[in-house]
Amino acid sequence: MYTLYSMQSSGNSYKVRLALAVLKAPYRLVEVDILQGESRTPEFLAKNPNGRVPLLEVAPDRYLAESNAILWYVARGTELAPEDPIERAEALQWMFFEQNSLEPNIGTAYFWLSLVKGGRDLQEHSLDDWMENGNRALRVMNAHLTKHDFFVAGRFTIADIALYAYTHVAHLGDFDLSPYTAVRHWLARVESQPDYVAMDWQPQTIAAE
Amino acid sequence: MYTLYSMQSSGNSYKVRLALAVLKAPYRLVEVDILQGESRTPEFLAKNPNGRVPLLEVAPDRYLAESNAILWYVARGTELAPEDPIERAEALQWMFFEQNSLEPNIGTAYFWLSLVKGGRDLQEHSLDDWMENGNRALRVMNAHLTKHDFFVAGRFTIADIALYAYTHVAHLGDFDLSPYTAVRHWLARVESQPDYVAMDWQPQTIAAE
Repeated sequence: MYTLYSMQSSGNSYKVRLALAVLKAPYRLVEVDILQGESRTPEFLAKNPNGRVPLLEVAPDRYLAESNAILWYVARGTELAPEDPIERAEALQWMFFEQNSLEPNIGTAYFWLSLVKGGRDLQEHSLDDWMENGNRALRVMNAHLTKHDFFVAGRFTIADIALYAYTHVAHLGDFDLSPYTAVRHWLARVESQPDYVAMDWQPQTIAAE
Repeated sequence: MYTLYSMQSSGNSYKVRLALAVLKAPYRLVEVDILQGESRTPEFLAKNPNGRVPLLEVAPDRYLAESNAILWYVARGTELAPEDPIERAEALQWMFFEQNSLEPNIGTAYFWLSLVKGGRDLQEHSLDDWMENGNRALRVMNAHLTKHDFFVAGRFTIADIALYAYTHVAHLGDFDLSPYTAVRHWLARVESQPDYVAMDWQPQTIAAE
Protein backbone atom coordinates (compact mmCIF):
# COMPACT_ATOMS: atom_id res chain seq x y z
CA MET A 1 0.00 0.00 0.00
CA TYR A 2 1.27 3.45 -0.93
CA THR A 3 2.04 6.08 1.69
CA LEU A 4 1.21 9.58 0.43
CA TYR A 5 2.62 12.71 2.05
CA SER A 6 0.11 15.41 1.21
CA MET A 7 -1.27 18.76 2.31
CA GLN A 8 -5.05 18.99 2.23
CA SER A 9 -5.19 22.46 0.65
CA SER A 10 -2.41 21.84 -1.89
CA GLY A 11 -3.67 21.44 -5.44
CA ASN A 12 -0.59 19.40 -6.35
CA SER A 13 -1.33 17.00 -3.48
CA TYR A 14 -5.00 16.86 -4.43
CA LYS A 15 -4.14 15.59 -7.91
CA VAL A 16 -2.76 12.40 -6.38
CA ARG A 17 -5.64 11.96 -3.93
CA LEU A 18 -8.12 12.36 -6.82
CA ALA A 19 -6.28 9.85 -9.03
CA LEU A 20 -6.00 7.27 -6.23
CA ALA A 21 -9.71 7.70 -5.44
CA VAL A 22 -10.72 7.21 -9.08
CA LEU A 23 -8.43 4.17 -9.26
CA LYS A 24 -9.88 2.83 -5.96
CA ALA A 25 -6.30 2.39 -4.72
CA PRO A 26 -5.98 2.22 -0.94
CA TYR A 27 -3.21 4.31 0.62
CA ARG A 28 -1.97 5.65 3.90
CA LEU A 29 -2.19 9.45 4.10
CA VAL A 30 0.28 11.58 6.06
CA GLU A 31 -0.71 15.23 6.34
CA VAL A 32 2.24 17.62 6.01
CA ASP A 33 1.47 21.26 6.78
CA ILE A 34 4.00 23.16 4.70
CA LEU A 35 2.66 26.43 6.13
CA GLN A 36 3.95 25.23 9.52
CA GLY A 37 7.34 24.24 8.11
CA GLU A 38 6.61 20.52 8.24
CA SER A 39 8.17 19.96 4.79
CA ARG A 40 11.42 21.61 5.91
CA THR A 41 12.26 19.33 8.84
CA PRO A 42 15.43 17.20 8.55
CA GLU A 43 13.24 14.09 8.61
CA PHE A 44 11.13 15.23 5.65
CA LEU A 45 14.07 16.64 3.69
CA ALA A 46 15.72 13.21 3.95
CA LYS A 47 12.70 11.88 2.03
CA ASN A 48 12.41 14.79 -0.42
CA PRO A 49 15.38 17.17 -0.61
CA ASN A 50 13.19 19.62 -2.54
CA GLY A 51 11.02 20.02 0.58
CA ARG A 52 7.67 19.73 -1.15
CA VAL A 53 4.48 17.71 -1.18
CA PRO A 54 3.05 15.55 -2.60
CA LEU A 55 5.53 12.76 -2.03
CA LEU A 56 4.75 9.08 -2.57
CA GLU A 57 6.61 6.20 -0.97
CA VAL A 58 6.69 3.77 -3.91
CA ALA A 59 8.90 1.14 -2.25
CA PRO A 60 10.39 0.90 1.24
CA ASP A 61 12.39 4.11 1.74
CA ARG A 62 12.07 5.03 -1.94
CA TYR A 63 10.19 8.26 -2.55
CA LEU A 64 8.78 9.82 -5.69
CA ALA A 65 8.23 13.60 -5.85
CA GLU A 66 6.52 15.96 -8.32
CA SER A 67 2.75 15.59 -8.54
CA ASN A 68 2.61 14.83 -12.26
CA ALA A 69 5.38 12.22 -12.10
CA ILE A 70 3.39 10.56 -9.30
CA LEU A 71 0.23 10.67 -11.44
CA TRP A 72 2.16 9.02 -14.28
CA TYR A 73 3.42 6.28 -11.96
CA VAL A 74 0.16 5.40 -10.20
CA ALA A 75 -1.88 5.50 -13.42
CA ARG A 76 0.43 3.30 -15.51
CA GLY A 77 -1.53 0.49 -17.12
CA THR A 78 -4.92 1.90 -16.03
CA GLU A 79 -7.72 3.63 -17.88
CA LEU A 80 -6.38 7.00 -16.68
CA ALA A 81 -3.29 6.67 -18.91
CA PRO A 82 -3.51 6.62 -22.72
CA GLU A 83 -1.86 3.65 -24.42
CA ASP A 84 -1.07 5.06 -27.87
CA PRO A 85 2.50 6.48 -27.95
CA ILE A 86 1.46 9.82 -29.43
CA GLU A 87 -1.47 10.16 -27.02
CA ARG A 88 0.83 9.29 -24.11
CA ALA A 89 3.14 12.09 -25.22
CA GLU A 90 0.18 14.44 -25.62
CA ALA A 91 -0.85 13.69 -22.02
CA LEU A 92 2.67 14.61 -20.92
CA GLN A 93 2.54 17.72 -23.12
CA TRP A 94 -0.48 19.01 -21.18
CA MET A 95 1.04 17.96 -17.86
CA PHE A 96 4.24 19.90 -18.59
CA PHE A 97 2.10 22.83 -19.75
CA GLU A 98 0.35 22.61 -16.37
CA GLN A 99 3.59 22.77 -14.40
CA ASN A 100 5.14 25.48 -16.55
CA SER A 101 2.27 27.75 -17.64
CA LEU A 102 -0.61 27.17 -15.21
CA GLU A 103 0.68 26.14 -11.77
CA PRO A 104 3.37 28.87 -11.48
CA ASN A 105 0.68 31.50 -12.12
CA ILE A 106 -2.74 30.22 -11.02
CA GLY A 107 -1.40 27.79 -8.42
CA THR A 108 0.97 30.34 -6.98
CA ALA A 109 -1.76 33.02 -6.88
CA TYR A 110 -4.07 30.56 -5.10
CA PHE A 111 -1.32 29.76 -2.58
CA TRP A 112 -0.34 33.33 -1.72
CA LEU A 113 -3.77 34.97 -1.94
CA SER A 114 -5.78 32.21 -0.32
CA LEU A 115 -3.53 30.22 2.00
CA VAL A 116 -0.80 32.57 3.22
CA LYS A 117 -1.88 35.30 5.63
CA GLY A 118 -0.71 38.65 4.25
CA GLY A 119 0.46 36.96 1.06
CA ARG A 120 -1.14 39.58 -1.19
CA ASP A 121 1.16 42.27 0.21
CA LEU A 122 4.24 40.04 0.22
CA GLN A 123 3.80 39.14 -3.46
CA GLU A 124 2.35 42.36 -4.83
CA HIS A 125 5.23 42.70 -7.31
CA SER A 126 4.16 39.46 -9.02
CA LEU A 127 0.37 39.79 -9.15
CA ASP A 128 0.15 41.37 -12.62
CA ASP A 129 2.48 38.74 -14.14
CA TRP A 130 0.47 35.90 -12.59
CA MET A 131 -2.78 37.37 -13.89
CA GLU A 132 -1.46 37.92 -17.42
CA ASN A 133 0.28 34.55 -17.74
CA GLY A 134 -2.49 32.63 -15.96
CA ASN A 135 -5.13 34.07 -18.26
CA ARG A 136 -2.95 33.22 -21.25
CA ALA A 137 -2.90 29.59 -20.06
CA LEU A 138 -6.68 29.62 -19.56
CA ARG A 139 -7.18 30.91 -23.11
CA VAL A 140 -5.08 28.04 -24.50
CA MET A 141 -7.07 25.52 -22.45
CA ASN A 142 -10.40 27.07 -23.41
CA ALA A 143 -9.56 26.98 -27.13
CA HIS A 144 -8.64 23.29 -26.86
CA LEU A 145 -11.75 22.42 -24.84
CA THR A 146 -13.98 24.18 -27.36
CA LYS A 147 -13.14 21.31 -29.69
CA HIS A 148 -12.57 18.45 -27.23
CA ASP A 149 -14.44 17.11 -24.19
CA PHE A 150 -11.18 16.18 -22.47
CA PHE A 151 -7.55 17.12 -23.05
CA VAL A 152 -6.25 13.87 -24.56
CA ALA A 153 -7.47 10.63 -26.12
CA GLY A 154 -11.14 11.63 -26.05
CA ARG A 155 -11.57 10.56 -22.44
CA PHE A 156 -10.83 11.46 -18.81
CA THR A 157 -7.09 10.94 -18.12
CA ILE A 158 -4.34 12.08 -15.79
CA ALA A 159 -3.91 15.14 -18.04
CA ASP A 160 -7.37 16.29 -16.94
CA ILE A 161 -6.58 15.57 -13.29
CA ALA A 162 -3.34 17.56 -13.51
CA LEU A 163 -5.05 20.58 -15.08
CA TYR A 164 -8.19 20.40 -12.95
CA ALA A 165 -6.43 20.76 -9.60
CA TYR A 166 -5.57 24.46 -9.77
CA THR A 167 -8.11 25.49 -12.42
CA HIS A 168 -11.02 24.61 -10.14
CA VAL A 169 -9.68 26.90 -7.41
CA ALA A 170 -8.55 29.69 -9.77
CA HIS A 171 -11.20 32.02 -8.34
CA LEU A 172 -9.40 31.81 -4.98
CA GLY A 173 -6.39 33.32 -6.77
CA ASP A 174 -8.46 36.24 -8.15
CA PHE A 175 -9.04 34.66 -11.58
CA ASP A 176 -12.45 35.11 -13.20
CA LEU A 177 -13.46 31.97 -15.08
CA SER A 178 -16.71 33.39 -16.44
CA PRO A 179 -15.23 34.18 -19.92
CA TYR A 180 -13.91 30.62 -20.23
CA THR A 181 -17.10 28.76 -21.04
CA ALA A 182 -15.47 25.60 -22.36
CA VAL A 183 -13.24 25.42 -19.29
CA ARG A 184 -16.24 25.70 -16.96
CA HIS A 185 -18.09 22.94 -18.82
CA TRP A 186 -14.98 20.74 -18.61
CA LEU A 187 -14.71 21.36 -14.85
CA ALA A 188 -18.28 20.03 -14.55
CA ARG A 189 -17.41 17.00 -16.69
CA VAL A 190 -14.47 16.19 -14.39
CA GLU A 191 -16.70 16.56 -11.33
CA SER A 192 -19.22 14.12 -12.80
CA GLN A 193 -16.64 11.33 -13.18
CA PRO A 194 -17.28 8.13 -11.19
CA ASP A 195 -15.43 8.16 -7.84
CA TYR A 196 -14.62 11.86 -8.14
CA VAL A 197 -13.69 13.35 -4.76
CA ALA A 198 -13.51 17.01 -3.81
CA MET A 199 -10.31 18.67 -2.61
CA ASP A 200 -11.48 18.69 1.00
CA TRP A 201 -12.19 14.97 0.98
CA GLN A 202 -10.19 12.75 3.32
CA PRO A 203 -9.85 9.01 2.77
CA GLN A 204 -10.98 6.54 5.38
CA THR A 205 -7.48 5.10 5.57
CA ILE A 206 -6.03 8.30 7.01
CA ALA A 207 -3.29 7.73 9.56
CA ALA A 208 -1.22 10.61 10.84
CA GLU A 209 2.34 9.83 11.79
CA MET B 1 11.58 11.96 -40.73
CA TYR B 2 10.64 14.39 -37.99
CA THR B 3 10.23 18.10 -38.65
CA LEU B 4 11.39 20.17 -35.66
CA TYR B 5 10.37 23.79 -35.19
CA SER B 6 13.12 25.27 -33.06
CA MET B 7 14.88 28.49 -32.12
CA GLN B 8 18.66 28.22 -32.05
CA SER B 9 19.13 30.17 -28.80
CA SER B 10 16.21 28.52 -26.95
CA GLY B 11 17.29 26.06 -24.28
CA ASN B 12 13.99 24.21 -24.59
CA SER B 13 14.56 23.78 -28.34
CA TYR B 14 18.18 22.75 -27.75
CA LYS B 15 17.06 19.83 -25.57
CA VAL B 16 15.40 18.22 -28.57
CA ARG B 17 18.30 18.95 -30.95
CA LEU B 18 20.71 17.38 -28.42
CA ALA B 19 18.55 14.27 -27.95
CA LEU B 20 18.09 13.75 -31.69
CA ALA B 21 21.85 14.16 -32.23
CA VAL B 22 22.67 11.59 -29.52
CA LEU B 23 20.07 9.25 -31.03
CA LYS B 24 21.49 9.85 -34.53
CA ALA B 25 17.93 10.57 -35.71
CA PRO B 26 17.71 12.62 -38.91
CA TYR B 27 15.24 15.48 -38.94
CA ARG B 28 14.25 18.56 -40.84
CA LEU B 29 14.86 21.77 -38.88
CA VAL B 30 12.71 24.88 -39.21
CA GLU B 31 14.10 27.92 -37.42
CA VAL B 32 11.41 30.01 -35.70
CA ASP B 33 12.59 33.34 -34.31
CA ILE B 34 10.20 33.99 -31.44
CA LEU B 35 11.92 37.33 -30.81
CA GLN B 36 10.63 38.39 -34.24
CA GLY B 37 7.11 37.15 -33.53
CA GLU B 38 7.43 34.10 -35.76
CA SER B 39 5.71 31.87 -33.18
CA ARG B 40 2.67 34.19 -33.08
CA THR B 41 1.71 34.05 -36.74
CA PRO B 42 -1.68 32.49 -37.60
CA GLU B 43 0.18 29.75 -39.47
CA PHE B 44 2.31 28.78 -36.47
CA LEU B 45 -0.55 29.14 -33.97
CA ALA B 46 -2.53 26.65 -36.05
CA LYS B 47 0.26 24.16 -35.32
CA ASN B 48 0.78 25.14 -31.66
CA PRO B 49 -1.94 27.30 -30.07
CA ASN B 50 0.44 27.98 -27.17
CA GLY B 51 2.75 29.83 -29.59
CA ARG B 52 5.98 28.26 -28.42
CA VAL B 53 8.94 26.26 -29.65
CA PRO B 54 10.08 23.54 -29.74
CA LEU B 55 7.34 21.84 -31.69
CA LEU B 56 7.71 18.43 -33.34
CA GLU B 57 5.61 17.16 -36.23
CA VAL B 58 5.18 13.53 -35.17
CA ALA B 59 2.76 12.55 -37.95
CA PRO B 60 1.36 14.48 -40.91
CA ASP B 61 -0.26 17.60 -39.45
CA ARG B 62 0.03 16.25 -35.91
CA TYR B 63 2.23 18.36 -33.65
CA LEU B 64 3.68 17.71 -30.21
CA ALA B 65 4.63 20.65 -27.99
CA GLU B 66 6.49 21.02 -24.65
CA SER B 67 10.19 20.19 -24.82
CA ASN B 68 10.13 17.46 -22.18
CA ALA B 69 7.11 15.70 -23.69
CA ILE B 70 8.99 15.72 -26.99
CA LEU B 71 12.07 14.25 -25.28
CA TRP B 72 9.89 11.51 -23.79
CA TYR B 73 8.42 10.71 -27.20
CA VAL B 74 11.61 10.63 -29.27
CA ALA B 75 13.55 8.69 -26.61
CA ARG B 76 10.96 5.94 -26.06
CA GLY B 77 12.56 2.52 -26.37
CA THR B 78 16.12 3.94 -26.57
CA GLU B 79 19.03 4.02 -24.16
CA LEU B 80 18.09 7.59 -23.23
CA ALA B 81 14.92 6.40 -21.47
CA PRO B 82 15.01 4.19 -18.35
CA GLU B 83 13.00 0.96 -18.56
CA ASP B 84 12.25 0.27 -14.91
CA PRO B 85 8.86 1.76 -13.93
CA ILE B 86 10.19 3.55 -10.85
CA GLU B 87 13.22 4.89 -12.74
CA ARG B 88 10.94 6.05 -15.56
CA ALA B 89 8.89 7.97 -13.00
CA GLU B 90 12.08 9.36 -11.45
CA ALA B 91 13.13 10.66 -14.87
CA LEU B 92 9.77 12.41 -15.15
CA GLN B 93 10.16 13.71 -11.58
CA TRP B 94 13.36 15.53 -12.55
CA MET B 95 11.85 16.70 -15.84
CA PHE B 96 8.85 18.22 -14.05
CA PHE B 97 11.25 19.74 -11.51
CA GLU B 98 13.07 21.27 -14.46
CA GLN B 99 9.93 22.86 -15.91
CA ASN B 100 8.61 24.04 -12.55
CA SER B 101 11.67 24.98 -10.47
CA LEU B 102 14.55 25.57 -12.89
CA GLU B 103 13.27 26.81 -16.27
CA PRO B 104 10.88 29.48 -14.89
CA ASN B 105 13.81 30.99 -12.97
CA ILE B 106 17.12 30.21 -14.70
CA GLY B 107 15.62 29.82 -18.18
CA THR B 108 13.58 32.98 -17.85
CA ALA B 109 16.57 34.95 -16.51
CA TYR B 110 18.68 33.69 -19.45
CA PHE B 111 15.94 34.74 -21.88
CA TRP B 112 15.36 38.24 -20.56
CA LEU B 113 18.93 39.10 -19.56
CA SER B 114 20.71 37.55 -22.51
CA LEU B 115 18.33 37.45 -25.47
CA VAL B 116 15.90 40.37 -25.06
CA LYS B 117 17.33 43.83 -25.54
CA GLY B 118 16.46 45.94 -22.50
CA GLY B 119 15.04 42.86 -20.77
CA ARG B 120 16.81 43.57 -17.49
CA ASP B 121 14.86 46.82 -17.04
CA LEU B 122 11.56 45.29 -18.20
CA GLN B 123 11.80 42.44 -15.69
CA GLU B 124 13.53 44.16 -12.79
CA HIS B 125 10.63 43.36 -10.46
CA SER B 126 11.28 39.62 -10.92
CA LEU B 127 15.08 39.42 -10.75
CA ASP B 128 15.34 38.75 -7.00
CA ASP B 129 12.71 35.99 -7.15
CA TRP B 130 14.45 34.31 -10.10
CA MET B 131 17.80 34.44 -8.31
CA GLU B 132 16.42 33.05 -5.04
CA ASN B 133 14.34 30.28 -6.61
CA GLY B 134 16.95 29.43 -9.25
CA ASN B 135 19.65 29.03 -6.62
CA ARG B 136 17.30 26.86 -4.57
CA ALA B 137 16.90 24.58 -7.60
CA LEU B 138 20.68 24.49 -8.12
CA ARG B 139 21.19 23.48 -4.47
CA VAL B 140 18.76 20.58 -4.88
CA MET B 141 20.55 19.46 -8.05
CA ASN B 142 23.99 19.84 -6.49
CA ALA B 143 23.01 17.76 -3.45
CA HIS B 144 21.73 14.97 -5.71
CA LEU B 145 24.79 15.09 -7.97
CA THR B 146 27.11 14.87 -4.98
CA LYS B 147 25.89 11.29 -4.63
CA HIS B 148 25.10 10.41 -8.27
CA ASP B 149 26.94 10.83 -11.58
CA PHE B 150 23.65 11.35 -13.43
CA PHE B 151 20.11 12.17 -12.30
CA VAL B 152 18.43 8.80 -12.85
CA ALA B 153 19.26 5.15 -13.41
CA GLY B 154 23.03 5.61 -13.05
CA ARG B 155 23.44 6.73 -16.64
CA PHE B 156 22.92 9.58 -19.10
CA THR B 157 19.18 9.94 -19.85
CA ILE B 158 16.64 12.49 -21.04
CA ALA B 159 16.46 13.77 -17.45
CA ASP B 160 20.06 14.97 -17.82
CA ILE B 161 19.32 16.51 -21.22
CA ALA B 162 16.30 18.37 -19.80
CA LEU B 163 18.27 19.77 -16.86
CA TYR B 164 21.45 20.50 -18.82
CA ALA B 165 19.84 22.88 -21.33
CA TYR B 166 19.38 25.89 -19.08
CA THR B 167 21.91 24.98 -16.39
CA HIS B 168 24.80 25.24 -18.85
CA VAL B 169 23.79 28.80 -19.78
CA ALA B 170 22.88 29.87 -16.22
CA HIS B 171 25.82 32.32 -16.16
CA LEU B 172 24.10 34.22 -19.00
CA GLY B 173 21.20 34.77 -16.57
CA ASP B 174 23.53 36.16 -13.85
CA PHE B 175 23.82 32.87 -11.94
CA ASP B 176 27.20 31.96 -10.45
CA LEU B 177 27.80 28.22 -10.70
CA SER B 178 31.15 28.27 -8.88
CA PRO B 179 29.64 27.12 -5.53
CA TYR B 180 27.95 24.16 -7.23
CA THR B 181 30.91 21.86 -7.71
CA ALA B 182 28.91 18.69 -8.35
CA VAL B 183 26.77 20.50 -10.91
CA ARG B 184 29.85 21.73 -12.77
CA HIS B 185 31.35 18.23 -12.85
CA TRP B 186 28.04 16.88 -14.16
CA LEU B 187 27.96 19.52 -16.91
CA ALA B 188 31.37 18.24 -18.02
CA ARG B 189 30.12 14.63 -17.95
CA VAL B 190 27.18 15.57 -20.19
CA GLU B 191 29.54 17.37 -22.58
CA SER B 192 31.73 14.27 -22.84
CA GLN B 193 28.87 12.04 -24.01
CA PRO B 194 29.24 10.46 -27.48
CA ASP B 195 27.53 12.56 -30.16
CA TYR B 196 27.09 15.52 -27.80
CA VAL B 197 26.44 18.73 -29.73
CA ALA B 198 26.68 22.30 -28.45
CA MET B 199 23.71 24.68 -28.41
CA ASP B 200 25.01 26.62 -31.42
CA TRP B 201 25.31 23.46 -33.51
CA GLN B 202 23.17 23.12 -36.62
CA PRO B 203 22.44 19.76 -38.22
CA GLN B 204 23.42 19.01 -41.79
CA THR B 205 19.80 18.24 -42.62
CA ILE B 206 18.72 21.85 -42.08
CA ALA B 207 16.04 23.04 -44.44
CA ALA B 208 14.35 26.37 -43.90
CA GLU B 209 10.74 26.68 -44.95
